[in-house]
Amino acid sequence: MPDTTTTLAALRAAVAAFVAERDWVQFHNAKDLAASMQIEAAELLEEFQWHDAAQVAAASRAPEALERVRLELADILVYCLCLSNALEIDVSQAVQDKLVIAGRKYPVEAYHGRARKPGQVE
Amino acid sequence: MPDTTTTLAALRAAVAAFVAERDWVQFHNAKDLAASMQIEAAELLEEFQWHDAAQVAAASRAPEALERVRLELADILVYCLCLSNALEIDVSQAVQDKLVIAGRKYPVEAYHGRARKPGQVE
Amino acid sequence: MPDTTTTLAALRAAVAAFVAERDWVQFHNAKDLAASMQIEAAELLEEFQWHDAAQVAAASRAPEALERVRLELADILVYCLCLSNALEIDVSQAVQDKLVIAGRKYPVEAYHGRARKPGQVE
Amino acid sequence: MPDTTTTLAALRAAVAAFVAERDWVQFHNAKDLAASMQIEAAELLEEFQWHDAAQVAAASRAPEALERVRLELADILVYCLCLSNALEIDVSQAVQDKLVIAGRKYPVEAYHGRARKPGQVE
Repeated sequence: MPDTTTTLAALRAAVAAFVAERDWVQFHNAKDLAASMQIEAAELLEEFQWHDAAQVAAASRAPEALERVRLELADILVYCLCLSNALEIDVSQAVQDKLVIAGRKYPVEAYHGRARKPGQVE
Repeated sequence: MPDTTTTLAALRAAVAAFVAERDWVQFHNAKDLAASMQIEAAELLEEFQWHDAAQVAAASRAPEALERVRLELADILVYCLCLSNALEIDVSQAVQDKLVIAGRKYPVEAYHGRARKPGQVE
Repeated sequence: MPDTTTTLAALRAAVAAFVAERDWVQFHNAKDLAASMQIEAAELLEEFQWHDAAQVAAASRAPEALERVRLELADILVYCLCLSNALEIDVSQAVQDKLVIAGRKYPVEAYHGRARKPGQVE
Repeated sequence: MPDTTTTLAALRAAVAAFVAERDWVQFHNAKDLAASMQIEAAELLEEFQWHDAAQVAAASRAPEALERVRLELADILVYCLCLSNALEIDVSQAVQDKLVIAGRKYPVEAYHGRARKPGQVE
């Protein structure tokens, strides 16, 4: 099922079923899940270790590298959904709430085309 | 919109609109997005730094701590969706493909109630 | 040479020689070195993924696990020393300065036997 | 005391004294120390978030940014030394052993001027 028709609830349920089948809920405390996200995010970052901008762009288009990236991204997402299941967090609501907060912190007029934080060296 | 009715495509579109409004697509290369996931995952983990199991469980129920966790989780998810947008990765498909791969790596019969990796100290 | 007789300068020089022999100074910008520390710290953390307190203690004593931990720690340290070489940071001075700053932030009388941050759930 | 005269043992002792004064040894299990390294490495990486190569180079020379980097590096090092103290790891020996192993993995003739891993997109 593609993103156009899959709800967050359906994707969360698929992850929850995988975890329940293995009786892994007992391991899914928030601290270990957060550590697991770190570990998986590091594996994603490792795909681009020492790469300059041109190499990052190339790796983002090369089918084999892109496939590895796709599955590393999935690893992080799986743990995000595990945490949302463990703590009963509505993911859609959390993301939307966060965008509202970030929208206030980074107003369009001040941050258009500008990702740097004020005060940082540019 | 809650998880029960929000599709991945809709959530990705909300994130894409936020990014487009600020003209931030130019910054969204895979390497910086992966680094950003790392940074946000560390902020999530920091919520549980030095916490023992009982403190982790308590923090997972305390409304104020849970609200911080909810928004840190959202930060990671936002960057995950930014990467899926930047590289045109179907998130639902990636997660489902990953669950199939993980299902072969961790068959139910061998890993029921057992998260440890073979060969690790138990 | 053991810690009792090895100076930081000598250890930094050993790392610098390894890097120079391979002409890797060109890759050693601060951002990639920081990312590399992240990646190596994740590999260290992975040794303890899903481990409860008793398993962490056991892994810290088991010779094989301890040897892996020892080499993962070395990986992080090597990148720390690479960064100190790249940016000409005196490591001993930095650590001592940081302990002074941390000493003011965490005065003995307020933090004796207490690692938690004020305001966090305990 | 600068790197030229400070031994690893002396720097480890300075960190050990700081920890002992606060009775923090009880918190210094390997898992939490590894997580803490992650958290501090993320703060270091954050200094360079979204920076392109020119901005990284500029931040590495700008006194204020460099001072922040210096202290973030110290944070990581402090936790490395805490782990070496907790597990009684000789840091100098570990780094030297690791350089020997890495020297076999990355022989000079094959990796001169070449940080990429074989098989990665270049």
